[in-house]
Amino acid sequence: MFAPLQNDTFIRACLRQSTTHTPIWLMRQAGRYLPEYRETRAKAGSFMGLATNTDYATEVTLQPLERFPLDAAILFSDILTVPDAMGLGLSFAIGEGPKFERTVRDEAAVNALHVPDMAKLQYVFDAVTSIRTALHGRVPLIGFSGSPWTLACYMVEGGGSSDYRMVKTLMYQRPDLMHRILEINADAVALYLNTQIEAGAQAAMIFDSWGGVLADGAFQTFSMAYTHRVLNKVHTEFNGVKIPRLVFTKGGGMWLDDMQQLPCDVLGMDWTVNLSQARAKLGDTHALQGNLDPNALFAAPEQVAQLGRQVLDSFGKPHMGDGTGHTHIFNLGHGINQFTPPESVAALVEAVHSHSKQLRAQA
Amino acid sequence: MFAPLQNDTFIRACLRQSTTHTPIWLMRQAGRYLPEYRETRAKAGSFMGLATNTDYATEVTLQPLERFPLDAAILFSDILTVPDAMGLGLSFAIGEGPKFERTVRDEAAVNALHVPDMAKLQYVFDAVTSIRTALHGRVPLIGFSGSPWTLACYMVEGGGSSDYRMVKTLMYQRPDLMHRILEINADAVALYLNTQIEAGAQAAMIFDSWGGVLADGAFQTFSMAYTHRVLNKVHTEFNGVKIPRLVFTKGGGMWLDDMQQLPCDVLGMDWTVNLSQARAKLGDTHALQGNLDPNALFAAPEQVAQLGRQVLDSFGKPHMGDGTGHTHIFNLGHGINQFTPPESVAALVEAVHSHSKQLRAQA
Repeated sequence: MFAPLQNDTFIRACLRQSTTHTPIWLMRQAGRYLPEYRETRAKAGSFMGLATNTDYATEVTLQPLERFPLDAAILFSDILTVPDAMGLGLSFAIGEGPKFERTVRDEAAVNALHVPDMAKLQYVFDAVTSIRTALHGRVPLIGFSGSPWTLACYMVEGGGSSDYRMVKTLMYQRPDLMHRILEINADAVALYLNTQIEAGAQAAMIFDSWGGVLADGAFQTFSMAYTHRVLNKVHTEFNGVKIPRLVFTKGGGMWLDDMQQLPCDVLGMDWTVNLSQARAKLGDTHALQGNLDPNALFAAPEQVAQLGRQVLDSFGKPHMGDGTGHTHIFNLGHGINQFTPPESVAALVEAVHSHSKQLRAQA
Repeated sequence: MFAPLQNDTFIRACLRQSTTHTPIWLMRQAGRYLPEYRETRAKAGSFMGLATNTDYATEVTLQPLERFPLDAAILFSDILTVPDAMGLGLSFAIGEGPKFERTVRDEAAVNALHVPDMAKLQYVFDAVTSIRTALHGRVPLIGFSGSPWTLACYMVEGGGSSDYRMVKTLMYQRPDLMHRILEINADAVALYLNTQIEAGAQAAMIFDSWGGVLADGAFQTFSMAYTHRVLNKVHTEFNGVKIPRLVFTKGGGMWLDDMQQLPCDVLGMDWTVNLSQARAKLGDTHALQGNLDPNALFAAPEQVAQLGRQVLDSFGKPHMGDGTGHTHIFNLGHGINQFTPPESVAALVEAVHSHSKQLRAQA
């Protein structure tokens, strides 16, 4: 069994319970901006070498927590492990993004897709258990997956894309095939997240990194509906403990009215969203997570602190309640940039902790 | 003097006047998806060779009008002509985006910036006059510029960017320098658009292609405020004829409440915007332009027609009035993709014209 949780601020804020400060963690907080990460990565030889090795994955997940008093850890892994386990052949060339050997662009390729055997993802679940053990209850561990639509983007494009031409061509020409891919992805993602939870993840996050490239209407049909399908199947509690579920759609601020229907605890926002307006819309149903521009971390440390305080002020004083509060989890609006000075992160975390305590003390 | 305007549908819709059909034109309608464009471009040798030659610029501007009954022409040029005239040295390497020889990243570079002598942009104004003459009043000619913020992105980054790290670093670290760049850009853009209008442009459009990368708050301060400054200086009429002014912020759908304050006639929308909701917000103050996903043109022609009709239906039946109507100008939500089949454009234009007439006939 795992050690009891000491800092439960993140979990409580997710569940709209009162906290003494606003919790903070950063998307991609274990990553290239940390020299110690780059060292471990060099030892591992490759990104997948790092992600598939339990010891390395544990080591890098804990690195940012050694430097900064962050309120949550997030599994070190990649969003594309599931399609890799489907047999598409994931690789990361040096200095480039992810690439799949095989793409899914026609009926034959779609027919060959199946929910993968979770045994192929055992390295992920082993990492979850190892990290949770190593954390020793300091902070909770977040498990995650890409959303069905975001996985489909990579599966059809074969890698990153600047225009999403291939995946949208398939979607507009053959919506039936796109729906079939998304059904399989949704079932695979749900199983993947549940197995992470069973292995020790204390929260589950869905990254819909590319939902925002869809047109109004298409987003609801091809992205949100399948995120919803995942949420319908993912544990809301495990061993009698609540498991918060978080959804982040980059570029999704336009559709907050729709996303309010998602049965999750937390909605993540990118930096284009006005947190005060988002809270007015969503505060009674969801905790909000976000949303500092990652590039704000290139300012001087005292400026970073001020920009962090502005985000807290934009959300405003949290309303406290036992599952009925208006709560905020501080984060960036997207993953931290690899060139970020670590001093900026230190300044941000300090400012968020201290200013959020002051906000609570205000009349 | 120029020939009288025959098809004034675009101008009337911009000014919220009644029209018999919804006008359509496409961002980047003169471009690489047309084989005849690729031929002219090959003759010109380079993109700037094409843009700076009056005859070639005229030829390619008219090419899409020969194929499709579009309701407006747009000057063939680039959004980066103004910083090029400021002395930054614009070039286009084959298969790559624009590059500047010199970037603007420090105080010395900012201090050296000036509103350029419009004589350096005479090739643009010559093209405007030549195109207007060649159009012979068939449809109106739209002149355009990049927005002050969008120009600043390229000037600081030195070209395109995936993360806008340099320009945002400058903005967050030295907002004073960023404001100085934007003031100069705004005055240069206003002068540039006015000189285009004096040379024959019948409408003026500002492309804020990168406004959407800014955080809430920063958008209003660093992009919208300077677009506003441009609009304050750009002709609203010339020689007694009204000149519609259009603003398109890619990714700006989040800020429609703010953008409603812009003193322009038309607001462009990308495909993430729900046109029906946008009309409910803005219909009494602005005509709306947009917003089909350019990738929809990769569907089969009958599907393209259906997707075009859906955009018209989303806006709904235009409300007719003499300067008080709710009007819609059909466009894509971004520039047309270079791999688009021209047949798709034919199907779209036909569907927009015929379906918008049917919409008007409905009770």
